Amino acid sequence: MERNITMMTDLYQLTMMQAHFLSEEDDYKAVFDLFYRKNPDASAFSVAAGLEQAIAYVKNIHFNEKDIDYLRSLNMFKEEFLTYLSDFKFTGDIYAVEEGTVIFPNEPIIRVFAPILEAQFIETALLNIINHQSLIATKAARVNFAAAGDDVLEFGLRRAQGPDAGIYGARASIIGGCSATSNVLAGQMFGVSIKGTHSHSYVMCFENEIDAFRAYSKVYSEGLILLVDTYNTLKMGVPNAIKVFEELRAEGRLPKVYGIRLDSGDLSYLSKKSRKMLDDAGFTDAIISASSDLDEYLISDLKLQGAKISLWGVGTNLITSKDTPAFGGVYKLSGIVKNGEILPKIKLSDTIIKVSNPGYKKLLRIYDKETGKIKCDLITLESEHYDEKDDLTVFDPISTWKTLTLKSGTYIIKEMLVPIFINGECVYESPKTLEIQDRCKKELDTLWSESRRLVNPQEVYVDLSKPLYDLKYRLIDENVVR
Amino acid sequence: MERNITMMTDLYQLTMMQAHFLSEEDDYKAVFDLFYRKNPDASAFSVAAGLEQAIAYVKNIHFNEKDIDYLRSLNMFKEEFLTYLSDFKFTGDIYAVEEGTVIFPNEPIIRVFAPILEAQFIETALLNIINHQSLIATKAARVNFAAAGDDVLEFGLRRAQGPDAGIYGARASIIGGCSATSNVLAGQMFGVSIKGTHSHSYVMCFENEIDAFRAYSKVYSEGLILLVDTYNTLKMGVPNAIKVFEELRAEGRLPKVYGIRLDSGDLSYLSKKSRKMLDDAGFTDAIISASSDLDEYLISDLKLQGAKISLWGVGTNLITSKDTPAFGGVYKLSGIVKNGEILPKIKLSDTIIKVSNPGYKKLLRIYDKETGKIKCDLITLESEHYDEKDDLTVFDPISTWKTLTLKSGTYIIKEMLVPIFINGECVYESPKTLEIQDRCKKELDTLWSESRRLVNPQEVYVDLSKPLYDLKYRLIDENVVR
Repeated sequence: MERNITMMTDLYQLTMMQAHFLSEEDDYKAVFDLFYRKNPDASAFSVAAGLEQAIAYVKNIHFNEKDIDYLRSLNMFKEEFLTYLSDFKFTGDIYAVEEGTVIFPNEPIIRVFAPILEAQFIETALLNIINHQSLIATKAARVNFAAAGDDVLEFGLRRAQGPDAGIYGARASIIGGCSATSNVLAGQMFGVSIKGTHSHSYVMCFENEIDAFRAYSKVYSEGLILLVDTYNTLKMGVPNAIKVFEELRAEGRLPKVYGIRLDSGDLSYLSKKSRKMLDDAGFTDAIISASSDLDEYLISDLKLQGAKISLWGVGTNLITSKDTPAFGGVYKLSGIVKNGEILPKIKLSDTIIKVSNPGYKKLLRIYDKETGKIKCDLITLESEHYDEKDDLTVFDPISTWKTLTLKSGTYIIKEMLVPIFINGECVYESPKTLEIQDRCKKELDTLWSESRRLVNPQEVYVDLSKPLYDLKYRLIDENVVR
Repeated sequence: MERNITMMTDLYQLTMMQAHFLSEEDDYKAVFDLFYRKNPDASAFSVAAGLEQAIAYVKNIHFNEKDIDYLRSLNMFKEEFLTYLSDFKFTGDIYAVEEGTVIFPNEPIIRVFAPILEAQFIETALLNIINHQSLIATKAARVNFAAAGDDVLEFGLRRAQGPDAGIYGARASIIGGCSATSNVLAGQMFGVSIKGTHSHSYVMCFENEIDAFRAYSKVYSEGLILLVDTYNTLKMGVPNAIKVFEELRAEGRLPKVYGIRLDSGDLSYLSKKSRKMLDDAGFTDAIISASSDLDEYLISDLKLQGAKISLWGVGTNLITSKDTPAFGGVYKLSGIVKNGEILPKIKLSDTIIKVSNPGYKKLLRIYDKETGKIKCDLITLESEHYDEKDDLTVFDPISTWKTLTLKSGTYIIKEMLVPIFINGECVYESPKTLEIQDRCKKELDTLWSESRRLVNPQEVYVDLSKPLYDLKYRLIDENVVR
């Protein structure tokens, strides 16, 4: 399953690398930050995901002979550069927030410090992998908030944007809180639960719906969920399911986990009617599951209306993050090493929020000691030191008059960027997907409920330290064209 | 690069297969149609894509020992079924519309006729592959309509939903009309053009912007496109680019293809100002390219405003089909073979347009002979025969009083479903990606301009033959629950 996606890069990475390579100065190091500017949907947070695959990518970087031949055929690259590429590998440092961590706009979630050619090269694949999985993990967290403790199943493979989107989207969905996926390969690759029922076509293969139900119940004595809307949910599907459950009960073979799945119509109405019919027949523990264009908003509304659904199969809207199908992660140069020192770099923009943060930085998370909730994040220069024994005053980087002072002893500081690669050696072992899911659950608990709200949530503050703020404005002043 | 994605399926495919396998009757054949119900965006058409990868998938289906071990570990499958799976392959027939073909809602674009277990199994992967590529090819066709003959470059890899979405999204973009992609791997795999310029980070590595431009122009003597918005487009970037072009001209090294790229700000205003500055300096043939959150609507508007842009780099909105990030392809049972005859099957729904078309069908396309434009599509039973020598009367399957009679000699009939697999043998050779692009261009020309409009286009009629219509309503009548 290990693929070599070294060639999966934007052409300009290679042309820029060659331009650096052919210049007099090509061996200096550079710092790049991977961050994003806006949470998907209306979320106040995102969930970091994809690091395991990003690590595998970096470890596996190599151009084989065919790749070099192809690049040569473009008549764009000099032999000396192609020779360099044939031995190319990553030798730098990468720090990153761990998967399952809640993250916020404009803060570095991956920091790369490496020779300029290497640091530049890995941009495209890193962004592709991290953007995709963080997008889906975030959506999954939102859907699971809406489900409020009910199990959510990821059912989107057939509508995913290609195989990887289905496979890694399933992984990210599990990280964000889904309890299982329908995707067998994802189950095999990531050791996560897989679930499924049956389709309309199965029912249609039989002369009568009840024959299909009987046949299926003969084979599956556990987790028997019957799809009841092939012909008519209330007039036929539910009565037939009840008949089969009664037969199984009479034979003493009623499964522990059993129930029905609704896949069309008004899920609120149908679930209440079905619940009543099942209860009246003595099947009060029968599960009612649903799957029909669900997303966090619809689940939330259905629950508000008292829909009798306790298991949610979410497909297209989750696996594509339909409302916001792209995570806007970017990768910006924040410094280069000249004469042994890091020369900070800034990217200007017409809007201050889009001006990048310069320098070699770290990310601190400040928690309220009593509740464990996040007070704010603080981006600082790597060289700065903070001590929980001191009072800590932070300020809003845009509206600088808004300050907050945290008394010593009332807060906890955590460094969020952990070492992943040091001098090209991977020093980090990725947890199993279910361990990441567990971490994510705890991470989501560090958000105040105000920031978990689906609609118009309270943003989480990401502040700059005073030294970083001063550096940023000095560089803006130096670089602005008047 | 050939991956085995046999296990990339929904669990229920395997559980249904086992249920069929363990029943007395498991060896009958079934017909499934792959079709979709709604065009993405506001389009009146879609572009079929992904067949080459779907074929590779079907050819390559096999469960290896590890797969069987994994399935065994689920405690869900009997040994006799696992033994069956270990020899599983596809032995049936597949007919499909060729890639690059324009397609319309509710018509079969792939028809599978195979033993029920095999026909059922391939559903998930077929849908995943065809849904994804058809989505992006359709979006690309729309973006290229908007660009009205200008070159459009696919630049979205970093925002794609995982590696495959970037790789096969690039392929689909080329099919839909893009002239190149930034994705090097897609270039290598599909033999398509790759293009790129340089990034802001490259400029920021130098002390001054003009040093960066000079360094880049030293290395690339062809296709020199300078990114001019790192600090200030009009006050610095364009003047510096002009300075470098002047130096190159003085040295007699001005490339044939050269120009600038705008990546932020108001592209209409900046392109006009830049054009004037370039023209005034004698660089009337300098290209102005743009790339900043472009889609078909923005390109169309910019052109309407006379923006001086002739090369469009389209990223996120194309590679994710942002407005509609999923193509709603479905795969429905339309018949099973009982006693040597095909027994037609129908899936009911509350809305007539969602009721599936039963039976073993074919798809005919009726062209106006004079213009070559599509008059309508006609779904018929396979057994029906039509002759261009006869007059042809078709009718709307919903508003049946709306009829259209085509006089003999004024129209051409084409059968759209071509054989891909016969008895499990692949009988079709996929054209090269660029040949498919060429076919797609011709296909798009068969649409009336009214149906190519970006906003509120005229829908293309998809009619049912009288025998199919009668069959459908007979089955509705037989299956409806009263």
